[in-house]
Amino acid sequence: MSASLIDGKTISAKVNQETANMVEELKKQGIHPCLAVILIGEDPASQIYVRSKVARCAELGILSRKHVLPQDARPEDVFALIDSLNKDPEVHGILVQFPPPPQIDEKAVVDAILPEKDVDCFHPQNVGKLLLGETDGFSPCTPQGVMTLLEESNIDPSGKHAVVIGRSNIVGKPLAALLMQKAKGANATVTVVHSGSKNMEDFVRNADIVIAAIGKPEFVRGSMIKPGAVVVDVGINRVQDASSPKGYKVVGDVCFDEVKEVASAITPVPGGVGPMTIAMLMRNTVKAAKLQCVK
Amino acid sequence: MSASLIDGKTISAKVNQETANMVEELKKQGIHPCLAVILIGEDPASQIYVRSKVARCAELGILSRKHVLPQDARPEDVFALIDSLNKDPEVHGILVQFPPPPQIDEKAVVDAILPEKDVDCFHPQNVGKLLLGETDGFSPCTPQGVMTLLEESNIDPSGKHAVVIGRSNIVGKPLAALLMQKAKGANATVTVVHSGSKNMEDFVRNADIVIAAIGKPEFVRGSMIKPGAVVVDVGINRVQDASSPKGYKVVGDVCFDEVKEVASAITPVPGGVGPMTIAMLMRNTVKAAKLQCVK
Repeated sequence: MSASLIDGKTISAKVNQETANMVEELKKQGIHPCLAVILIGEDPASQIYVRSKVARCAELGILSRKHVLPQDARPEDVFALIDSLNKDPEVHGILVQFPPPPQIDEKAVVDAILPEKDVDCFHPQNVGKLLLGETDGFSPCTPQGVMTLLEESNIDPSGKHAVVIGRSNIVGKPLAALLMQKAKGANATVTVVHSGSKNMEDFVRNADIVIAAIGKPEFVRGSMIKPGAVVVDVGINRVQDASSPKGYKVVGDVCFDEVKEVASAITPVPGGVGPMTIAMLMRNTVKAAKLQCVK
Repeated sequence: MSASLIDGKTISAKVNQETANMVEELKKQGIHPCLAVILIGEDPASQIYVRSKVARCAELGILSRKHVLPQDARPEDVFALIDSLNKDPEVHGILVQFPPPPQIDEKAVVDAILPEKDVDCFHPQNVGKLLLGETDGFSPCTPQGVMTLLEESNIDPSGKHAVVIGRSNIVGKPLAALLMQKAKGANATVTVVHSGSKNMEDFVRNADIVIAAIGKPEFVRGSMIKPGAVVVDVGINRVQDASSPKGYKVVGDVCFDEVKEVASAITPVPGGVGPMTIAMLMRNTVKAAKLQCVK
């Protein structure tokens, strides 16, 4: 292996410690950051995500409120709950675990959350601030997690060619927006490739920094990587694995075993971008509390 | 000259005719689209812009209201005016001519305009919708003008490599967002290069579609263009010209005489993107009236 490992566990632990310190500081001022988490229905994956977010809040001294609604919750009840949390001065961040059941319109949920409490940075107003380079909104958790991994690994994207594979609203598009800003830790030449791209491999091979967020298991092969490039793997894919007791294993969008021989630095899956996402959610919750309470 | 000319005058005339037809249709339903234009101070260029917008409204049957405030207008008076226009059901679009005098905060002005009436598409909420691919907001006038020029010239960006030179909030960033969407008339592989880019020429030379929006006179030379590429010039630069009675001439960001020999299609300056910007403003005003009044 020639690549150094970008260790998301260590870096997220550092970020979490900083967040816990900020919580302590805020508590001294009588401000107790609080995240409200809404779970609708009983999707097992969603239950796990919610449980780990609530647990992380507790670890960092952040209050949390968990609201569980039934699978057949009426839209009006969901929106009434969001509305009451929007108005509650003791709640600083609101998160609805996606996907909701089919009767609940995902976009309407996003639009209903007060932008000031939208710690996921899904609301159009916060997404717009992101593209415009305004820093008084939030930064979306997974893309900001990638930026922080680079920063903490002393990898400066400035002047480099960053190729983002995938154009999802959750990762690819906001990450491209972050990377292209005229700002410290950004300022990259950015290319976004996607399912509609021709000769995608040529673009990836030209990249100094590759961000894989296309949702295809081990899509990025060693032959696609310029020697010495930095490779960040945002993918989380379950693939069959008869040798595992669970019958599956989790792999990223990058063929780790091949790419680690070519790249200069690489994130593993799991243990790369994954732990950063919750760390950024925690940091956003504290930022929300600060913005709302510190005058 | 090998390149065909992308004629913004002809295309904008066609768009304007469609807009005038839509105005006629709306009037039959008792809806009269109305744009409010606010001019603060006496900047000569701003006066010309405002005059031409008001004149174009009149040509297309759109009502307009021109509000002129003095150079030393107090911020509270500006915001009170915006607020009253936000609340006025007979006003569908609101535009503040920029730049405002120094005592007026540009960003605060943008944020004060109701997103539903923000026909310039400067409000973060509308910018966010743009990046997210939501079509119930507005599309920014100059970037959408570029997209419409391509569409009307039967140039489909899908699968092509579009290189946007410049990352301004008004042109480069929103144009990149438009071009990368999974949508008809878009779906391009998009690279954004800018002042922080290394080897910018290599990227431009790789492009099937070049959009120059960097604000440097005749920056894009013939040698930077791949034979057969499409070149769209968003620049409007005044350069000294002793042979002109005015003492200056207006040139784009593209060295037209060189590039026209290499490209397959090119926009002139003036007469390319320029006339499209106001055409898109008019279309947005009619869209605003429709969204606000047609239930």
